[in-house]
Amino acid sequence: MRVEQVRGSLVEAWHDVHVAVVDSTGRLRARAGDPDLVTYWRSAAKPFQALPLVEDGVVDRFGISTQELALCCASHSSEPGQIALVRNLLAKIACSERDLLCGPHPPLSERVASDYATRGVRLTAVYSNCSGKHAGMLALARHHGWPTEFYTRLEHPVQQRCLAEVHRWTELPLSEIGTAVDGCGVVCYGLPLRNMALAYARLASAEFGVRNAESQGVRREANDHSQQFRTPHSALRIVEAMLRHPELVAGEGRPCTEIMQAHPGRVIAKLGAEGVYCALLRQEGLGVALKVADGHGVAAALALAAVLEELGLRPRPASLTARPSVNTRGETVGELRVNGRLEK
Amino acid sequence: MRVEQVRGSLVEAWHDVHVAVVDSTGRLRARAGDPDLVTYWRSAAKPFQALPLVEDGVVDRFGISTQELALCCASHSSEPGQIALVRNLLAKIACSERDLLCGPHPPLSERVASDYATRGVRLTAVYSNCSGKHAGMLALARHHGWPTEFYTRLEHPVQQRCLAEVHRWTELPLSEIGTAVDGCGVVCYGLPLRNMALAYARLASAEFGVRNAESQGVRREANDHSQQFRTPHSALRIVEAMLRHPELVAGEGRPCTEIMQAHPGRVIAKLGAEGVYCALLRQEGLGVALKVADGHGVAAALALAAVLEELGLRPRPASLTARPSVNTRGETVGELRVNGRLEK
Repeated sequence: MRVEQVRGSLVEAWHDVHVAVVDSTGRLRARAGDPDLVTYWRSAAKPFQALPLVEDGVVDRFGISTQELALCCASHSSEPGQIALVRNLLAKIACSERDLLCGPHPPLSERVASDYATRGVRLTAVYSNCSGKHAGMLALARHHGWPTEFYTRLEHPVQQRCLAEVHRWTELPLSEIGTAVDGCGVVCYGLPLRNMALAYARLASAEFGVRNAESQGVRREANDHSQQFRTPHSALRIVEAMLRHPELVAGEGRPCTEIMQAHPGRVIAKLGAEGVYCALLRQEGLGVALKVADGHGVAAALALAAVLEELGLRPRPASLTARPSVNTRGETVGELRVNGRLEK
Repeated sequence: MRVEQVRGSLVEAWHDVHVAVVDSTGRLRARAGDPDLVTYWRSAAKPFQALPLVEDGVVDRFGISTQELALCCASHSSEPGQIALVRNLLAKIACSERDLLCGPHPPLSERVASDYATRGVRLTAVYSNCSGKHAGMLALARHHGWPTEFYTRLEHPVQQRCLAEVHRWTELPLSEIGTAVDGCGVVCYGLPLRNMALAYARLASAEFGVRNAESQGVRREANDHSQQFRTPHSALRIVEAMLRHPELVAGEGRPCTEIMQAHPGRVIAKLGAEGVYCALLRQEGLGVALKVADGHGVAAALALAAVLEELGLRPRPASLTARPSVNTRGETVGELRVNGRLEK
């Protein structure tokens, strides 16, 4: 599968796409390119980094709302309402913006970025698209009595707890999960697309949590936290939060939000940096993970929309069908479009 | 040849590169990937779009300076001095900024873009990185008494004249040169990398113009303008203008300028949009054309620097060896680097 940049009669550039579509038993149901490609999960791991908040009782203890939980799973647009919710969450856990260790950057939404530039808004850590995730990690630390300092480091119990959750859902031994530093400073995870897709498929599998905890003793030994896996209710609360608040998972006009709004209640879509995109098809019980080899983000969104359509969903959002290329004079000079299909 | 985005211990994204290295006789001297890949020349065609200005006597008639001629070959940074030169050229040919048909866009230099945004500079057509080329095209129209309206259209004699020049230098029949609309509205040319490289190699071949005009009658018949090819002096004046003013071909801190300044008098380097890069190695008489398949511009610059090094040039500019990736917290989390070599 390729996403092609067409100009005139030529394909001027192209973006190779690797896709794994997996069900909750781990069976590969469809593919394109190399479904075993190993890459970093980046921000598409956020739902699993937020899962300990439900699992460990953090959400209930601090009264974290579904909106705030959705933001813990988000790469948000730094919209004023989103920032207010993150600040609210920080207040609930007696933390401040100064505790956030994510670095500042211009909002991912061009509209918001332009608005803030015009108004001279100072972009602090809370404006990072990852500030919800970071606030969630601070909440996890508060709950367990761990230090809130240096929570981004691999050796910190917060990161070890998140890593254990990734290990559990992806079925990858800890020794096979690569780790590196993410764009916002926390740990990111290197693993095959197939395992990312498995984790997403399992989000919809009500039985998974129980069955997993009962049958796979190896996981109990691998980390202390596996003892706490009693029920899949934690996953359902994450799924519910994202499905109820697609406008918080990304933001107005951005692909994750538009895809989820185009298929209300049926799809969770979560992008990661460098061309990663993951999705859950809830009714079908399928997880999707894809990677654009060169990291092109728009191509990844178009590819995900095409994959969802191939898996039976219609209509995909109009913004993510072939996208016109417009030059500096406002002329349409070509388009970005998906070429190729899944192998089933 | 690939340009790899490394994070931690993984290659997180990669950019495939196709390269043709050709001498002035058309012999393929080195390659990577597919040297016959057909793509658009984009802004790397600018020296050949400027050649009619010398050939047809436009430069001499209007007293166009070497600086102004360099800007006709440039994708400039919209620096104040560059804009002043383009305005000067427009005045010489009794045209105004309102005659320019290039669309506005933020300056290609982030520093300049940020400066103009802060100062509220209104970005009109003259600020387009292509405004020198457009001013040159207006000069060509003025000289020949062609209309200055609609000079961007394929059927306009200005575009037909430029197309004939591309045909001459690339040795491609007109019927085999694809045409489409470029980012700035003029015609862009679709052709194999090998032919782009040939055209660049010939820029250094003092004999080419004469020999070509004498031996290849087919070209005389192909278009009216071939009659005017008497001497290679036109090419040498283009080469001289670019070599003398590398700071005008792009701008401070941008790759074309830095590459040319790193090899003073020895190299012409000209980028094009969507991952195209061309170069002339003057002493070696070699032309280089490369394309990053996915259109990644930074990868193209790194690849060109690596190719030049393989062809015997040192040192390449430090900014274009492996480039560190820095996250939002200022931490170095990886690097972009070239992997692979030319086949000779």
